[in-house]
Amino acid sequence: MFEDPRRQKQLQQLIQKLGLPANAPVNLSLLDLALIHPSACETRNYEQLEFVGDAVIRLVSAEILLETYPEETVGEFAAVRSIVVSDRVLAELADFYGIEPYLIIGSNAKGNRTGRQSWLADAFEAILGALYLSTHNMDLIRPWLDQALQKQSAKVRSDPARENYKDALQEWTQGKYKILPEYKVSENKKPSNRENRFVAEVWLRGLTEDSKLQAAGTGSAKKPINPRSDRFLGKGLGRSKKAAEQAAAKDAFFSVISEQ
Amino acid sequence: MFEDPRRQKQLQQLIQKLGLPANAPVNLSLLDLALIHPSACETRNYEQLEFVGDAVIRLVSAEILLETYPEETVGEFAAVRSIVVSDRVLAELADFYGIEPYLIIGSNAKGNRTGRQSWLADAFEAILGALYLSTHNMDLIRPWLDQALQKQSAKVRSDPARENYKDALQEWTQGKYKILPEYKVSENKKPSNRENRFVAEVWLRGLTEDSKLQAAGTGSAKKPINPRSDRFLGKGLGRSKKAAEQAAAKDAFFSVISEQ
Repeated sequence: MFEDPRRQKQLQQLIQKLGLPANAPVNLSLLDLALIHPSACETRNYEQLEFVGDAVIRLVSAEILLETYPEETVGEFAAVRSIVVSDRVLAELADFYGIEPYLIIGSNAKGNRTGRQSWLADAFEAILGALYLSTHNMDLIRPWLDQALQKQSAKVRSDPARENYKDALQEWTQGKYKILPEYKVSENKKPSNRENRFVAEVWLRGLTEDSKLQAAGTGSAKKPINPRSDRFLGKGLGRSKKAAEQAAAKDAFFSVISEQ
Repeated sequence: MFEDPRRQKQLQQLIQKLGLPANAPVNLSLLDLALIHPSACETRNYEQLEFVGDAVIRLVSAEILLETYPEETVGEFAAVRSIVVSDRVLAELADFYGIEPYLIIGSNAKGNRTGRQSWLADAFEAILGALYLSTHNMDLIRPWLDQALQKQSAKVRSDPARENYKDALQEWTQGKYKILPEYKVSENKKPSNRENRFVAEVWLRGLTEDSKLQAAGTGSAKKPINPRSDRFLGKGLGRSKKAAEQAAAKDAFFSVISEQ
């Protein structure tokens, strides 16, 4: 039995917004918890549910991709999923379902508009965690999320810019480190044919402890020092500078998607 | 209805080895598929099920950690899980349940003993994928896997060497890149007190395209070039060289666990 009748009414409204029936067996205490941002309460907030929900969205995406594209390779599954479960897409879904009004969040955190995508995505994952833990299966998730994920997957797959690995890589580095990848192109000293006249490398430059911590999701930890470092991401060859950059981006992209 | 009666008998034997009842609703075609290594068949093998199973083991681990240690932080959950779902531990579980005799694998791959841990872990994940997809919940998994995962989690948490982040980091770099981390220690030029007299950096040196591809799980792709590169992992301060190295390892470890 949920104790606060006003909050209970709000939560039931949210359940219906998601497309679930009013009598769906949702654990309201968990759903309530999924909507408490750490800025509102340090000890009772959505972090644990987000940890579960992150695994839930990865599993649901895997199931849906396998069901929808049974002939595809796992490389393609991994590439599509890395975009479908990105903060950008999850925050879009959170907006689509109108999650924000139900969130309990400190005014400082709410006012930080650059962080908005991140906390919306986190809360969306926490909601999925709460729904999963209500029944220990996907019965409260797949009826409404399948269609949205299928649509997103089809959009990713049909995107003509997707073969544009520079864009895909940029999406990943910005999402994870808030840094643009940098390309270094030079003439190949020993070209064996015209297809490898240029050689490109792609790097992440000036990674700070802050950006690494942000990527690790442990931004609140205190660090004594703040060095900068570079990280090599990939390398490629091409008949033009542009082609070499694309080849380097592709190399880097397939290397980094395993880190998602 | 499964067609090959001899294989059916083997699969039912395996189901009972896992501790499931003989009449458990396991989809035998999926379980069969989970035991076919890519070296045995390029088109019909366990790769897709492994992709699903990888998400399954992450979700089951998250559930079990939350149920067993409800007061713990998500940082601790992530750190424990990164070890519990590592190839080393999954291969140990595969050995414990005696999976290997049921695997269909090319003799070259089987003879490659250094790859054994990797394909045993992959097949174990694929089995979890097959069991999950048989019922679309954890009913065929948690009854037997809970105890094993709880035991592994307790072992990780009670390990006195766990606060030894150098060991933990080494486990990660060896598992992912088959490379040992390297430490570079120097005197801190501007120590503010005796606690930060030394400064240590930890690096992964000589990363090749091969090691990156292996880490990305796309080892079969052909690459035109094979450059080597270094990757900065972390930095730390300490009153002794050893303490600075431990601090650097801790910094690096918390940065890399998000890549699991």
